[in-house]
Amino acid sequence: MGSYRVAVVGAAGYAGEDLVRLLSRHPGVTLWLLTSRMHRGKRAEEVISGLPDAAGELVFEEPEISRLCQADLIFLALPHGTAAEYAVPLREAGKIVIDLSADFRLRNPRRYEVDYGWSHPAPMLLSKAVYALPELRRQRIRQADLLAMPGCYPTSILLALYPALAAGWLREEGIVACSLSGTSGAGRRPEVPLLFSEMSENARPYGVPRHRHMAEMEQEIDLLAGRKVDLTFVPHLIPLARGILSTIVCSLGVDIRPEDARAHYLSSYRDEAFVRVLPLGDLPAIRHVVRTNRAEIALECDVARRRLFLFCAIDNLGKGAAGQAVQAMNIRLGLPEEEGLLW
Amino acid sequence: MGSYRVAVVGAAGYAGEDLVRLLSRHPGVTLWLLTSRMHRGKRAEEVISGLPDAAGELVFEEPEISRLCQADLIFLALPHGTAAEYAVPLREAGKIVIDLSADFRLRNPRRYEVDYGWSHPAPMLLSKAVYALPELRRQRIRQADLLAMPGCYPTSILLALYPALAAGWLREEGIVACSLSGTSGAGRRPEVPLLFSEMSENARPYGVPRHRHMAEMEQEIDLLAGRKVDLTFVPHLIPLARGILSTIVCSLGVDIRPEDARAHYLSSYRDEAFVRVLPLGDLPAIRHVVRTNRAEIALECDVARRRLFLFCAIDNLGKGAAGQAVQAMNIRLGLPEEEGLLW
Amino acid sequence: MGSYRVAVVGAAGYAGEDLVRLLSRHPGVTLWLLTSRMHRGKRAEEVISGLPDAAGELVFEEPEISRLCQADLIFLALPHGTAAEYAVPLREAGKIVIDLSADFRLRNPRRYEVDYGWSHPAPMLLSKAVYALPELRRQRIRQADLLAMPGCYPTSILLALYPALAAGWLREEGIVACSLSGTSGAGRRPEVPLLFSEMSENARPYGVPRHRHMAEMEQEIDLLAGRKVDLTFVPHLIPLARGILSTIVCSLGVDIRPEDARAHYLSSYRDEAFVRVLPLGDLPAIRHVVRTNRAEIALECDVARRRLFLFCAIDNLGKGAAGQAVQAMNIRLGLPEEEGLLW
Amino acid sequence: MGSYRVAVVGAAGYAGEDLVRLLSRHPGVTLWLLTSRMHRGKRAEEVISGLPDAAGELVFEEPEISRLCQADLIFLALPHGTAAEYAVPLREAGKIVIDLSADFRLRNPRRYEVDYGWSHPAPMLLSKAVYALPELRRQRIRQADLLAMPGCYPTSILLALYPALAAGWLREEGIVACSLSGTSGAGRRPEVPLLFSEMSENARPYGVPRHRHMAEMEQEIDLLAGRKVDLTFVPHLIPLARGILSTIVCSLGVDIRPEDARAHYLSSYRDEAFVRVLPLGDLPAIRHVVRTNRAEIALECDVARRRLFLFCAIDNLGKGAAGQAVQAMNIRLGLPEEEGLLW
Repeated sequence: MGSYRVAVVGAAGYAGEDLVRLLSRHPGVTLWLLTSRMHRGKRAEEVISGLPDAAGELVFEEPEISRLCQADLIFLALPHGTAAEYAVPLREAGKIVIDLSADFRLRNPRRYEVDYGWSHPAPMLLSKAVYALPELRRQRIRQADLLAMPGCYPTSILLALYPALAAGWLREEGIVACSLSGTSGAGRRPEVPLLFSEMSENARPYGVPRHRHMAEMEQEIDLLAGRKVDLTFVPHLIPLARGILSTIVCSLGVDIRPEDARAHYLSSYRDEAFVRVLPLGDLPAIRHVVRTNRAEIALECDVARRRLFLFCAIDNLGKGAAGQAVQAMNIRLGLPEEEGLLW
Repeated sequence: MGSYRVAVVGAAGYAGEDLVRLLSRHPGVTLWLLTSRMHRGKRAEEVISGLPDAAGELVFEEPEISRLCQADLIFLALPHGTAAEYAVPLREAGKIVIDLSADFRLRNPRRYEVDYGWSHPAPMLLSKAVYALPELRRQRIRQADLLAMPGCYPTSILLALYPALAAGWLREEGIVACSLSGTSGAGRRPEVPLLFSEMSENARPYGVPRHRHMAEMEQEIDLLAGRKVDLTFVPHLIPLARGILSTIVCSLGVDIRPEDARAHYLSSYRDEAFVRVLPLGDLPAIRHVVRTNRAEIALECDVARRRLFLFCAIDNLGKGAAGQAVQAMNIRLGLPEEEGLLW
Repeated sequence: MGSYRVAVVGAAGYAGEDLVRLLSRHPGVTLWLLTSRMHRGKRAEEVISGLPDAAGELVFEEPEISRLCQADLIFLALPHGTAAEYAVPLREAGKIVIDLSADFRLRNPRRYEVDYGWSHPAPMLLSKAVYALPELRRQRIRQADLLAMPGCYPTSILLALYPALAAGWLREEGIVACSLSGTSGAGRRPEVPLLFSEMSENARPYGVPRHRHMAEMEQEIDLLAGRKVDLTFVPHLIPLARGILSTIVCSLGVDIRPEDARAHYLSSYRDEAFVRVLPLGDLPAIRHVVRTNRAEIALECDVARRRLFLFCAIDNLGKGAAGQAVQAMNIRLGLPEEEGLLW
Repeated sequence: MGSYRVAVVGAAGYAGEDLVRLLSRHPGVTLWLLTSRMHRGKRAEEVISGLPDAAGELVFEEPEISRLCQADLIFLALPHGTAAEYAVPLREAGKIVIDLSADFRLRNPRRYEVDYGWSHPAPMLLSKAVYALPELRRQRIRQADLLAMPGCYPTSILLALYPALAAGWLREEGIVACSLSGTSGAGRRPEVPLLFSEMSENARPYGVPRHRHMAEMEQEIDLLAGRKVDLTFVPHLIPLARGILSTIVCSLGVDIRPEDARAHYLSSYRDEAFVRVLPLGDLPAIRHVVRTNRAEIALECDVARRRLFLFCAIDNLGKGAAGQAVQAMNIRLGLPEEEGLLW
């Protein structure tokens, strides 16, 4: 068992459950404490399948700050707006906090208010938080104590766009991102539209004209591009439980051959264990990344019309949530970055 | 538009919705009134897809007896226990009632109490009700004013067993029925275990040792056999929205060749529009009966071991609920039995 | 039985099978002849579920021109390139031909050669063919004897775009269409990537940078707009059997309020039985149109950024193939346009 | 990298692929050689997703005995009948062979001939093979050089039955096993009935009256019971890619309380890492065991009617194939039995 004690708050949601699965087998940390209001008093193995014995016997507790402070590092897998309530006292107590909600992703609290509909509950902490996409912020993650994990859609879209944005290839207007998501992205909420009876043989768009993830994508894209970029985003719910596939269409401001574009992508992600740039002609498929922390990225060019097509597949609960949070933890704690990332 | 006015109480559940779809295009009746507490005040087309204009513009009402009495015939698509509250006053008002719940399926109110957990709310009506499986009770349906529609599992199992029971082939012990059902069988209830995220790539048994449908199956099987028969029943939830497949294993008390067994089945269902006995060697598949009122039945024999295998596929919302209810209505009203049974 | 004799060539593919289902219950025509090389000699009911008795007893034949000429109207549900072999002699014999392949969709045979990879097999017939999207070409369909049914993706995209293009709202550049399709769109081909084991919990893009349906969409969009329009199209395969959902993002060249945009759409499709324009705020879902001939269309505006979002859901085998072909037949034969369009 | 060199013959089928995934991360062995006729010359990562770098760069070879003999242990993931061709020379060369086919499961070559339709290709090896169900044959596996891995259905059914059979609870007649399987059980074969378009929203029985797995189940059940036991088995294909759920109904020859029955099961599997006996009242679900090597077993009693219900869920490619083969390898090589069994 590892020397760091970790806790998971909100351990019975889909992301929380996967955090527990990963951390329970992680050699560098000890899973110390699980909380779940709904399952308080139950043993973890009654709720989460596939746990090793030690983790399975942990008992879900009420989330209390004093108990949580016995851990070194706390994962918050809570609804937006609720996470901040825990982050504030835990940071005051000097704990490392890895937050999977949207509460600390935006630098500007007004943007948060616009998209989430309430005042930011802890604006003073925003400047301390790092938007913890490991491939873009590894250095800052090493030194931060409040890691705001990116949303699942933004992870897939930013990883696909980053090399193109950094190279300055794109024209100002016209990034259109069309994403397909599994139903677990909506959480473990008992709602009629998420029933199997409703979603089997079904698919539907939602979240237009402005999905909540727009703000963090705009923030990060503008930073990467060094200017204001116009993004259009349409998410869709499709009949699978896990996985996101993002398709992005961009206008190129330069002439570029597909082989050169791919070479740049390969070089951008050369040292990344969790990003795979596919050969030209290959396109990603969700089944290749489900229950992994990997992103599969492909690109295609329509040279004559100066169009760049980007594709990225991830597991929304893996690289899009629990897996990426463990990856960020590994970076922060100085552990090998790939450790403990097998489901 | 047909000359009979019909109403559907509980029109926004899965069975209710299919009743509305079928009745709205039925040439022999006029869909007069829809009720739904949850959707009161909405137009039907806001809730139910694919309706013709006239039906789409009906407005969901509160279920009130005085309003319901303006119809000639009332379908009750309500939870068990609730249906009786409506059936009593509607019968007192002389209306024809077709009830899709379990409330009037059992002759013996004590059996109801055992399996449903509460006293029967209207025991005096039980002797007036007909267990309305059309292939077995056509004559009685013609004259009854309270039709208790069979459950979906019992429909599939009784149709498969009836010719064998009637022929006296079976030994006393050992009918084992194993049924697979789609998730719509559990109703439109927002519960976590019924979420797409939980049921995709999943399957699970439930309802052992005694599912609520046992009582009506025992009642009907014993009647058909003319003696007490021992039935074991295990239902399973599988990842599809609609459909039931029942597999039944019986011990034969007589020697019978498969061809003769099939000939007897063909002859038993010779005049039935909605039962198809498959050729020997063929086995039913749910996809062949989804959104139909048909049952596909097959049989296979293990002659040496005197085992009879019976198989029956239906749509749980079609022949297992709404379709069969419309078929029963057609019989009761003297309309052509196949009328209006296209989805 | 109707007075027109109709034949279906290629009756055992997915579109052919649905044609047979629809035509077998169509009161205005008599299903006269079915062909299928693979199933030659079998009765239709052995291959296609849910047929009425008369149709079920038809026997699949080899497709021979002399036999086909006994019908008045012939549906060709054949692979691209093969349909023309039948269309030429059937047209010479004076028969009405409704072709579901791509063979007669393009006016310019060179475009066909580019996208399909072989010379057009019957270029002289192209000028006689009508691109038979009923909502756009009703008058011409009435008088044509060679109807080229639109592809499934183009149907969904053209129906969504038509009112906006006709109104001249769109800027020249930047129509991005992202479509999700069920696996039946790939036909009944036994290929590993189409297995349930591969597609369950999977999704993947394909057909970039240039899917074969681009040519017909470009041809029709340019006609509607009266100028060259730049279209980008990315199709995706998602884990459902039937259905297409297209999401289209456009740049507006004019200021328009969502209510006015919707009013224009409502008015454009006012008399159309098979197009439903959803209320603002609603978005289409595939499950509402599966096994129907309907298209559900919605729109949304981002006024500040002058973006128009269009959405269209259809059944790829219904409005995208067999249903629309029957609708076109009804128009051509002077039958009521909605007749026989219930599955 | 581990000190034993292992090879996988038939590495591109579903079981082969999962063997490669597991062995590539197994600390006790070195994945040395992969063969696939179809993919000869391709790198493993082009065909199998999610491999670590070293394994991903292995190149699929033709299966040649001389090359295979460079490994210490060879997994055969080949069709029935083909595996024996490799097993004979590899055993002559002194190699350890773990065969996932049915070729060495039956002691009696005549039973093989009856169920598989051809003479056994290597009857002299049958007496050397061990039916390698680890929970029942751990001692013999330690010393055998030809391990015949059990079929997926038999694994689920034997694990569920073993404690009851060993205790002598069952009456002679009447074990009825009803199993539900995912489509990957049929292999990666491009056949129309296995297409997503055919299996979505579908389910169907097959393999009656006698599935090929009957012979090995009868052989093993009779051994466990010490007498001839009458088994009936009906497999079903359901719409999921991975997983098996078996439901077994037995007649009890003794009176036994559910708590005592469960206590006996718990005690029978007390030291087993991969078998979990659920609490009374809980029933297994496929999603809890997918991508694991675990079996979840539950039981229920109908005391009055002396019926025992047994349930077992496994992953057909995990505990039912690749996982169990790795478990058997661990036992044979003296490695920790749980090593390398994370997907």
